[in-house]
Amino acid sequence: MSSAHPDPALLERFADLIVGFGANVQPGQIVAVGSELGKEDLTRAIAASAYRRGARFVDVSYFDPHVKRARILYAPDDALEFIPSWFGERVVALGEQRCARVSLSGPAAPGLLDDLDPVRAGRDRFPWIPEVGQVTSDRTTNWTVAPCPTPAWAELVHPDLEPELALARLWEEIVHVCRLDAADPAAAWRERVVAISAAARRLTERRFDALHFEGPGTDLRVGLMASSRWMSADFETVDGIPHMPNLPSEEVFTTPDPERVDGVVRATKPLTLLGGTIVRGLSVRFEGGRAIQLDGDAGVETLRALCEADPGGSRLGEVALVDRQGRIGPLGTVFYDTLLDENASSHVAFGRAYSFAVGEEDHDRANDSAIHIDFMIGGDDVDVTGLTAAGERVPVLRGGDWQI
Amino acid sequence: MSSAHPDPALLERFADLIVGFGANVQPGQIVAVGSELGKEDLTRAIAASAYRRGARFVDVSYFDPHVKRARILYAPDDALEFIPSWFGERVVALGEQRCARVSLSGPAAPGLLDDLDPVRAGRDRFPWIPEVGQVTSDRTTNWTVAPCPTPAWAELVHPDLEPELALARLWEEIVHVCRLDAADPAAAWRERVVAISAAARRLTERRFDALHFEGPGTDLRVGLMASSRWMSADFETVDGIPHMPNLPSEEVFTTPDPERVDGVVRATKPLTLLGGTIVRGLSVRFEGGRAIQLDGDAGVETLRALCEADPGGSRLGEVALVDRQGRIGPLGTVFYDTLLDENASSHVAFGRAYSFAVGEEDHDRANDSAIHIDFMIGGDDVDVTGLTAAGERVPVLRGGDWQI
Repeated sequence: MSSAHPDPALLERFADLIVGFGANVQPGQIVAVGSELGKEDLTRAIAASAYRRGARFVDVSYFDPHVKRARILYAPDDALEFIPSWFGERVVALGEQRCARVSLSGPAAPGLLDDLDPVRAGRDRFPWIPEVGQVTSDRTTNWTVAPCPTPAWAELVHPDLEPELALARLWEEIVHVCRLDAADPAAAWRERVVAISAAARRLTERRFDALHFEGPGTDLRVGLMASSRWMSADFETVDGIPHMPNLPSEEVFTTPDPERVDGVVRATKPLTLLGGTIVRGLSVRFEGGRAIQLDGDAGVETLRALCEADPGGSRLGEVALVDRQGRIGPLGTVFYDTLLDENASSHVAFGRAYSFAVGEEDHDRANDSAIHIDFMIGGDDVDVTGLTAAGERVPVLRGGDWQI
Repeated sequence: MSSAHPDPALLERFADLIVGFGANVQPGQIVAVGSELGKEDLTRAIAASAYRRGARFVDVSYFDPHVKRARILYAPDDALEFIPSWFGERVVALGEQRCARVSLSGPAAPGLLDDLDPVRAGRDRFPWIPEVGQVTSDRTTNWTVAPCPTPAWAELVHPDLEPELALARLWEEIVHVCRLDAADPAAAWRERVVAISAAARRLTERRFDALHFEGPGTDLRVGLMASSRWMSADFETVDGIPHMPNLPSEEVFTTPDPERVDGVVRATKPLTLLGGTIVRGLSVRFEGGRAIQLDGDAGVETLRALCEADPGGSRLGEVALVDRQGRIGPLGTVFYDTLLDENASSHVAFGRAYSFAVGEEDHDRANDSAIHIDFMIGGDDVDVTGLTAAGERVPVLRGGDWQI
């Protein structure tokens, strides 16, 4: 790509994949698009694509991180957690009215909050709306998250390139990892998802009691529930609309036992929080499922404040494995974007679990929280071993390759 | 101003006037800001100003006219009037929760819809939310509308200037008409409002039965109700919070009798509809209160479609008089923005009336509609005469000067 602005044909192709395959928008549906200033071009292409498929209304929300900055700087201290009632009510209505949801990831203003009080920054979780967790678990909306390159994000990812080249390079990478270079990107994804789903099935059949992660700075046991089901991004709503919640997606994931996580884990990639705070060099110690110590080189105070939002915020709601057959890991790029980085390597998440990844009998034991924050713990030098209830050790990932 | 981007000190000064005087935001209030892409700088200054005054939350909505364009181009025909339930519910909640409201005017993308089907364009009234009319009439929110210069708007207003100079010139004009050049802009406005309110009081005391507008292409009688009260922009909420709903405001206005408007009227300025359609050379014939014929050189089909939204859309909900002592009229600039142009000259509005401008006994007779579209009919060459119930003719405005 020679221009910093991708050509309209590429935007349309990407938008059609996001709308038609990722969210799988149906005629007559309302489509909620969560975007951010700086992502106008792709947002508009998505709106046009959705209307061309017969959407009844496209409701675009542009988040402005500079308004968040003003809030953290000046808002009264007792108002930092406050979110007006209509935000949650809108999300509940999106579920009740069986709407589609599209979100665009990628930090549009990285570093914007870096000079602010990290505790105040962590207490302001907007634009995250807690009700999104419930609606997601209810499977009443067909939704997807896809990355949208911006100049500021490109400079963060490729600081050694000229700004225009950095943006072109980021677009190239997005085209590659989203398989937009395939003759039929949706067909390419369907094929890849078959392989990922097969790995998920094999893992579920093993009924491991726990996973053991071992690598530099990492010695962590993550207990699984008896009914934990491994899943891929091959989702379906309660009404039977298939959708792919992440574009790209290379992971298999399940819901761990929130009371059986022990040991220490070092993050293998930086982690970008909503709003742009970057957490670097993170290391976490778990005891009885709870994160009792968080250390890091940067951003860790903001993360700590987020995890302290509620009791479930310092327990795990997700464990996910990623092999190195995906397209993201081999690039070796740190994207500073959870969507991409979590699909480059195995990860766990603080906070809310997807209750549909455990059997009915364990729904109440799945972790609950207003937050869900993934962080990356996998890599070619991190071994993953399955532990059976009988005490047997079964290699699962070695050097990033499946062993089962 | 030498730079196209106004300096941050001016933005802060303007934001403080909008927030502190116009909307008069109170500590603990939620503030809804209706903005548009292209108006980010002033929007952020407003958010910061509101938080500094103790706002509990600033909820910014950025409207994207390009998404509206996509809707008009591609949305299913039966969905063009549709607005999801949560937009109206949010507005109702703004009233119930006694929030403050700020809107930024000024066309950010003039001409963007000009090549589209005008009837479809007129049927899509978003981002206008019908419930705003009710909440405004209920006087439960303290609110204001203020102009925000953008490069595209500046080019529309000053097509003969280089873009950067056009923007600087528009900012200069906004500073002038908003009295930001006064030592204490809020005090300057308080003083001006006293004079405007005195004119309103004199008009109310005359209890005219109708007004007669006479000028080039205009011979129009607008009946008034027996209880019609002339008002200025000196508003107060039901809870006693004073606010100034328009910045700038130079008008006195009242609610006419929607069944007694007769004759023909030629608009004295172009009119910009929500979304950017410009109506030029408008001429309207009224009979028994109803607009039975709309003609014009451009944009009139879109206006016609808007007026046909409901029965009250083709009747008048407002008549307003503007003298030439205000700061806008003497500039001679056509702003293509209703907020500014309506405060440069006398005007009337299709659609919803402000029911609080008539006595309780006439509330039910005030015009009702989902729309409220002002158009300018006054000027130095348009005489305004008051007609008493006894048939007497009393000069009201001659050459733009008050005669009463």
